[in-house]
Amino acid sequence: MIDEPQTALEVLAAFDAGTLTPEMYLDALLERCAQIEPDVHAWTYLDPQHAKAELAGANRTGILRGLPLGVKDLFHVRSMPRGCGSPIYAGEISAVDASVVTLARLAGGYAMGKTQTTEFATYTPAPTRNPMSLAHTSGGSSSGSAAAVAAGMVPLAFGTQTAGSVIRPAAYCGIVGYKPSFNLIDTSGVKELSRSFDTIGVFARSVSDAALLVDAVTGQSFLNATKGADAPSVLGLCRSPVWGMVEPDMQNAWDALCAMLQTKTVVRDIVLDDRYERAIEAHPKIMAQEASQALAYERENHPELLSPALKSMLDEGRARSDVEQHADLQNMSQLRHCFETDLGDTPIFITPSAPGAAPLYETGTGSPAFNRLWSLLGGPCVTVPGLKVSDGRPLGVQVVGPIGWDAKVLNVATWLADILAGFD
Amino acid sequence: MIDEPQTALEVLAAFDAGTLTPEMYLDALLERCAQIEPDVHAWTYLDPQHAKAELAGANRTGILRGLPLGVKDLFHVRSMPRGCGSPIYAGEISAVDASVVTLARLAGGYAMGKTQTTEFATYTPAPTRNPMSLAHTSGGSSSGSAAAVAAGMVPLAFGTQTAGSVIRPAAYCGIVGYKPSFNLIDTSGVKELSRSFDTIGVFARSVSDAALLVDAVTGQSFLNATKGADAPSVLGLCRSPVWGMVEPDMQNAWDALCAMLQTKTVVRDIVLDDRYERAIEAHPKIMAQEASQALAYERENHPELLSPALKSMLDEGRARSDVEQHADLQNMSQLRHCFETDLGDTPIFITPSAPGAAPLYETGTGSPAFNRLWSLLGGPCVTVPGLKVSDGRPLGVQVVGPIGWDAKVLNVATWLADILAGFD
Repeated sequence: MIDEPQTALEVLAAFDAGTLTPEMYLDALLERCAQIEPDVHAWTYLDPQHAKAELAGANRTGILRGLPLGVKDLFHVRSMPRGCGSPIYAGEISAVDASVVTLARLAGGYAMGKTQTTEFATYTPAPTRNPMSLAHTSGGSSSGSAAAVAAGMVPLAFGTQTAGSVIRPAAYCGIVGYKPSFNLIDTSGVKELSRSFDTIGVFARSVSDAALLVDAVTGQSFLNATKGADAPSVLGLCRSPVWGMVEPDMQNAWDALCAMLQTKTVVRDIVLDDRYERAIEAHPKIMAQEASQALAYERENHPELLSPALKSMLDEGRARSDVEQHADLQNMSQLRHCFETDLGDTPIFITPSAPGAAPLYETGTGSPAFNRLWSLLGGPCVTVPGLKVSDGRPLGVQVVGPIGWDAKVLNVATWLADILAGFD
Repeated sequence: MIDEPQTALEVLAAFDAGTLTPEMYLDALLERCAQIEPDVHAWTYLDPQHAKAELAGANRTGILRGLPLGVKDLFHVRSMPRGCGSPIYAGEISAVDASVVTLARLAGGYAMGKTQTTEFATYTPAPTRNPMSLAHTSGGSSSGSAAAVAAGMVPLAFGTQTAGSVIRPAAYCGIVGYKPSFNLIDTSGVKELSRSFDTIGVFARSVSDAALLVDAVTGQSFLNATKGADAPSVLGLCRSPVWGMVEPDMQNAWDALCAMLQTKTVVRDIVLDDRYERAIEAHPKIMAQEASQALAYERENHPELLSPALKSMLDEGRARSDVEQHADLQNMSQLRHCFETDLGDTPIFITPSAPGAAPLYETGTGSPAFNRLWSLLGGPCVTVPGLKVSDGRPLGVQVVGPIGWDAKVLNVATWLADILAGFD
C-alpha cells in the first residue's frame, strides 16, 4: 500500500476521503518497519501493540488527526523507555510526556515509538544506518528520526538541533529537515544539552509536512507559507565561512545549482564578516561549557558510563574560563540581534546543509561545521533534498534566515524543493 | 548554640577553626527545626536521618565544605520526593539531581531537605508562614526557602524567580535574596514554568553568603565583589513604572532612605520610558503563554488537580495570539539589549523589592509587580533587609543592574546592607 511513501498531507487527504484509516495506515507502516528496520536500526523502541494502543487513544480530530510520529529518544513519552543514547538511562520508563508530545497529541498525533539518538545528542554514534545507502551514516544526533522518515517507516518525526543535529541527518537521508527559530517550541521534558542552542526540529518528506507538524505544536500557520511559493525577489547564496571544508561533490553541485538559480531570480553572494567567523569557533566552546552543566549529574555520578569523547568535551567545558564564556555569549546575543540588519535586503539565503554526502558509517556521524553558525544565530533553517552525488547519496541545501523569519524561509524552501525535484 | 543564626561564612570559619563540625552544626539546625517548623511550615521534606546521610556523603572540601542547603521543591534531589507544589507529583521520588544540586555537592554542599513552593511556582500558596510574623505570608513562590533561611533553620537555600519569586519572599522575610543574571545558572532538572524568565536564585543571611553560593555553582568569584564595598560613585533611584501600587509604609521608608543616601553618594532618579512600561504589562502575558506550553502535560492530563487560578492562567496563555507573543518577545529582546545603554552612566540602581511588607497569610503571597520588569530584563537583583514597618515586618530594597553586572550589583548591595544595618 505504501511502497512509495506518501507525505503526511497525502495520508491525511486519504483519511479524509475515507480511502485509508489510521489503523490501516499504522498496520502498513508496521509491516514496512518489519522489513526495513532490521537493516536500518532507526528505533530504540517500537512495539507494535504499544503503537496500536497509542493510536487507540489518539485524538481523531485536529490537524494531525491520527498521524503517527517518531520521537527522538531524548524526549519523554509516557510509558515508553527513554535512554538518551546512554547506558545511564537504559530501561528507564517515562512517567510523563514532554510538552511537545502533549501538544502533538492534542492536535491528533501519537507516538509510534522512540528513535535513535547519539549519546546525549553529542557524537558517539547510534547504530542507525542510512536507508539510502546502508554502508553510510544517517547523520546525528537525530539519527533515527531522519532514517525512519527517509525509509518510509513513519511520516513525521521530532528531533533536536544544538549544533547540526536536524539539518545534517535530514540532508544525508534525502528528506526535509526544519529547525525552527530558537525558542519557538518549548523543550520541557527533553533532555538538555546546551541551553543557548537546544532547539526542537522536525523531519518530513516535504516542506509542507514539516510546516504542518510545527503548526500542530505551536499554533502557527506556517503551512500557508508553503502553498503556491513563487520565486523570492532576491535570494542570497552563502558559501559560509567554513567553505574550506566543502567536499568536491558538494562544491560541484553547489556551483551548478547557483548557476541555475541565477536564471530563476536575482541572486546575491552573502559574505559574512569576521565577527561571524569567530562565532563559528565560539559555538563548540559555549556548547561544551553549557553541556558540562546540563550533564553535571551524569558527569559526576556515572563517569564510567560516558564515552571518552563526551567525557573529554565535558571536562573541556568545565575548565573553560567564565570570562571567555561570558564574552562569547555577549557576542552571540549581539549577532542574534543584528543579523537581520546585517543581511539588509537579502534576508533569506541558501547554503550547503553539510560538507558533502553521508560519510561511511564507521567514520562517525559527519560534521556539523555547516550548521554551527546558524544554530548559534538561532534563525530558521530548512534543508531540502534533490541534489545527489554520483552513487545516488543525497546532498542537502538549506534555506536560512534570521530569528522569526520561519514563514518566509519555509516559503523559499518550498520554491527551492520544487526546482530541485526537477534538477539533474 | 545557634540561637542567633550565623551566616554561612561564620559557620565555615568555625568549621575551619575546629570549633564546630558539620555534624554538630546539622544537629543544632535540626533541633531548631524541631522547635520552629511546626509553626512555619517551610519544608515539604525534612527527614533528620536522611539529612545526616546526606552530610555523611558530602564533600568536606570545596567552598561549601559541609554546609547544608534548602532546595525548593521544584528541583530534583536524588532519593528525595519532588512535588512541585502540586498533588500531581505528590510522593514522586527523584532518581537524579538537578544540575545545580550536583554542582553544589561538588563544592561541598548537601541537601538538608526540600522547601515549600507555591503550585508550580505560580500563585496558589504553600502552607508556609512568615517566621518574622506568623500571621503573614513568607511570599512566593520560593516560600519555604525564604522562611527556612530567615528562621535560621538552614543557612542557604535555592529558589527560582520567573516573576518575583526570589526577591519578594526574601524581602518579606527580612533576608538577602539574589536573582543572578538570566541563564547564569543552568536549570536542568528544575521544573520549567516560563523559558524566557525562569532563573535560579539564592536565599542567604548576608550578601556575601549569597555570592558564596552562586560562586559555588558557577565558578564565578562574586564573593570578592562583596569585600570592602565602598560607596558607588553614582546610584540610581528608581520608583519604577508601577509606583502607583506602592503602600504608604514603603513610600515613607523609601523617601527617608533616598534622603539619607543623598548624603552618602551622588544619586540620580531613573525614569524609564514607555517601552519599559509596556514591557511590565507584557511580562505576565509572555509568561502565561510559555507556562501553557511548559505545563502542557499537566494541563491536559490532570486538569482536575490544577487550581482554578493556574488553570485559568494556562487557558489564557493557550489562547494568546502568536503574533502578539512574538512581538512581545522581540521587544523584550530589544530591551534586554539596550537596557545597559539606556542606563548610561548610572548602570546600578535601587528600587523597592515589593509594594510593602508581607501581607496577611490569608490574602495570598503578595504581588510581584515590583519584580516583573527586572525578571523580563534578565539582569541581577539583590534584595537587602534593614527597613521595617512599625510592627517590625521587614521591607526590602533591591539593587538592580543590566545582564552581566552581577559583581557590581553585589558590591553595591553589600554597601547598602551595611548602611541599612544602622538605619532607623
